[in-house]
Amino acid sequence: MSKPQSQNEMNAGRLESPRLGEPFLLTPGPLTTSYAVKEAMLRDWGSWDGEFRAMTVELREGLLALTGDTEGVLDCVPMQGSGSFAVEAMIGSFVPKSGKVLVLANGAYGKRAAETVKYLERGLSFVDKGDYMPPRGDEVAAILATDPDITHVLAIHCETSSGILNPVKEISDAVEAAGRKLLVDSMSAFGAVDLDINEVRYEAMVSSANKCIEGVPGFGFIIACKDSLEAAKGNSHSLSLDVHAQWAHMNKTGQWRFTPPTHVVAAFLVALRAHKEEGGVAARGARYTRNRDVVVAGMRDLGFETLLKDRWLSPIIVTFFCPADERFEFTRFYELMKDKGFIIYPGKLTVVDSFRIGCIGQMDEHVMRNVVRAAKEALVEMGVADASPPEIALIERAKLAA
Amino acid sequence: MSKPQSQNEMNAGRLESPRLGEPFLLTPGPLTTSYAVKEAMLRDWGSWDGEFRAMTVELREGLLALTGDTEGVLDCVPMQGSGSFAVEAMIGSFVPKSGKVLVLANGAYGKRAAETVKYLERGLSFVDKGDYMPPRGDEVAAILATDPDITHVLAIHCETSSGILNPVKEISDAVEAAGRKLLVDSMSAFGAVDLDINEVRYEAMVSSANKCIEGVPGFGFIIACKDSLEAAKGNSHSLSLDVHAQWAHMNKTGQWRFTPPTHVVAAFLVALRAHKEEGGVAARGARYTRNRDVVVAGMRDLGFETLLKDRWLSPIIVTFFCPADERFEFTRFYELMKDKGFIIYPGKLTVVDSFRIGCIGQMDEHVMRNVVRAAKEALVEMGVADASPPEIALIERAKLAA
Repeated sequence: MSKPQSQNEMNAGRLESPRLGEPFLLTPGPLTTSYAVKEAMLRDWGSWDGEFRAMTVELREGLLALTGDTEGVLDCVPMQGSGSFAVEAMIGSFVPKSGKVLVLANGAYGKRAAETVKYLERGLSFVDKGDYMPPRGDEVAAILATDPDITHVLAIHCETSSGILNPVKEISDAVEAAGRKLLVDSMSAFGAVDLDINEVRYEAMVSSANKCIEGVPGFGFIIACKDSLEAAKGNSHSLSLDVHAQWAHMNKTGQWRFTPPTHVVAAFLVALRAHKEEGGVAARGARYTRNRDVVVAGMRDLGFETLLKDRWLSPIIVTFFCPADERFEFTRFYELMKDKGFIIYPGKLTVVDSFRIGCIGQMDEHVMRNVVRAAKEALVEMGVADASPPEIALIERAKLAA
Repeated sequence: MSKPQSQNEMNAGRLESPRLGEPFLLTPGPLTTSYAVKEAMLRDWGSWDGEFRAMTVELREGLLALTGDTEGVLDCVPMQGSGSFAVEAMIGSFVPKSGKVLVLANGAYGKRAAETVKYLERGLSFVDKGDYMPPRGDEVAAILATDPDITHVLAIHCETSSGILNPVKEISDAVEAAGRKLLVDSMSAFGAVDLDINEVRYEAMVSSANKCIEGVPGFGFIIACKDSLEAAKGNSHSLSLDVHAQWAHMNKTGQWRFTPPTHVVAAFLVALRAHKEEGGVAARGARYTRNRDVVVAGMRDLGFETLLKDRWLSPIIVTFFCPADERFEFTRFYELMKDKGFIIYPGKLTVVDSFRIGCIGQMDEHVMRNVVRAAKEALVEMGVADASPPEIALIERAKLAA
């Protein structure tokens, strides 16, 4: 395998191209990471050793620095496994066995959270807004007013099924006003979309290594109020996913309770430093926003329509309707795009055919212009003259405005 | 970072030194892996893409090839997280909610398995043999005869707390004779110590990526009878750790249910190919056995005594008593050994002071001779004249012969 450039030429904050033949991942993670991030995995660490313990400290402090917590009320607990493991760990650890969770769903991740609550045999109140309608603060207030058993509300920050950025601030206000607790799944948004603890007053939130911080997959993390971490003792249904136990052990020994993904952690530290060097959450969000704006404008020029109106578009991932033209086949489009160096993502809508293009990872607007160019070529190669969506797609889209 | 040698010079089955300044990890994992294994992590994969799905197929088939299963009764299910996550997934998925598990413990991993059973609210029968005494087949038979509620027996293959290789064959015979089911935690042994399904008739076993296959940490795997995988539906206490659901989804879609640690998987495939090229389980076990024999003989020459008699010594990790000499301090010894390029492992015995030296990873007998040489130098630097253990250690050791 050849190396694209020497270590000296590599700046943490600078974008690079993937190596020859390696496609960009226009997906919500795993995503395209920098070479420097991957290069950090070229050595082995002993998880018991002092050097690795120092790496764990840097990881936790680096993440806490992104929360807006100036008073030290929060702590950060990394958790082995995928993001869904961290979501389950959060629910199982913070919702007591007698608790009840209002899950606000408008896509696959909200539904998965509800399924998790059921597995864990906590009480569940489930609001399903369908494929893309946002749950609103007043709805939440109304439900909480009628159901005093609800102890927690779980909101999805960016629902990557549709790409919608849910209004977590107004949800937080409603939850706080009703004296309940908020859990946030900020998996695909944290690090690029502001989630300031002074604005969105969560008890706990989760995200993972391979999203907007641009690390590689292998662990997630929970950021939670220290009071709640303390109070979480004895709640968890699972030894492995017990956030209190992981937190207490880590604070006592500096080590993860069970073997950490050492290489993935090393990669994450390089990603965290690059995130800071780029300018933190604001700059990362601005780059992704430019990525989104370029791809949305370019695809609209080709006739593609977005599922969501501009107001709800996240800078994370965008859902486009498949064209009405019957010569458009998603599988063929996927392969043509892959041949041109871009891996796109299938859609997850239940009513109409769609696909998604991710805006996160080591990519900038120049890359996104090439994505649009590739899509244009692919349409020509498929003989698709007009990329405008079928009428049913536009009816779906109109519902959001109503 | 510099590269020790070019790709052309690198053969999968050949041993390499870690790069300059990087110590050997004489630990039970994370361990020292080859450069080729780590180099496989230098690219990003889309977990949804066909290329990665093919990698998952290779991973599962490669592991099944090590089981001795000629009739296709077993299947392999990788699981995100550390080895302990896989153990919990196994217990939660194969032991029904009404089941009862006899856990055979002689160290930390047996105790952790029992703790897991308690978290999962399954019935528990717990045999604690202390720091190192092996659970024997006739004991198991006697317990099963008196307790018909026990549905499963859980045995630890190599208990890395002491390094003992437990007699899983005679345990398997006892479990089968009593018509119960066997679960094996072969975390640190699988791939180097034979665990043939025709000899040790388990319902399910677990191991992880960063043990004797010499991959990097980030996932474990469960190998289980297909019948049992089918029957496991609905048992799991956890969405993330549901082995049935992971298996069914993987067989249907070729994908992991939730984001896999893509880079760790890529590294593991290189490790699996190297394992095969080296000569499979027998050759891997033979190299580790030579490693152990060299380090045991050398350390004994220096006056160090092993906790275990030769019969019970595994080729995975060896426990040595700390010397009686009061000038011996483990922390100082650890730092001196680390300065010389070797990270050793603290002991886990409750009665006497000890430390451990791992024999697994990308190391051979030449490395182990250097380990002994380093230990000799460290003793001199600490002013320890005599490395023989205190009397209490020898009394402990004598109990095993009784």
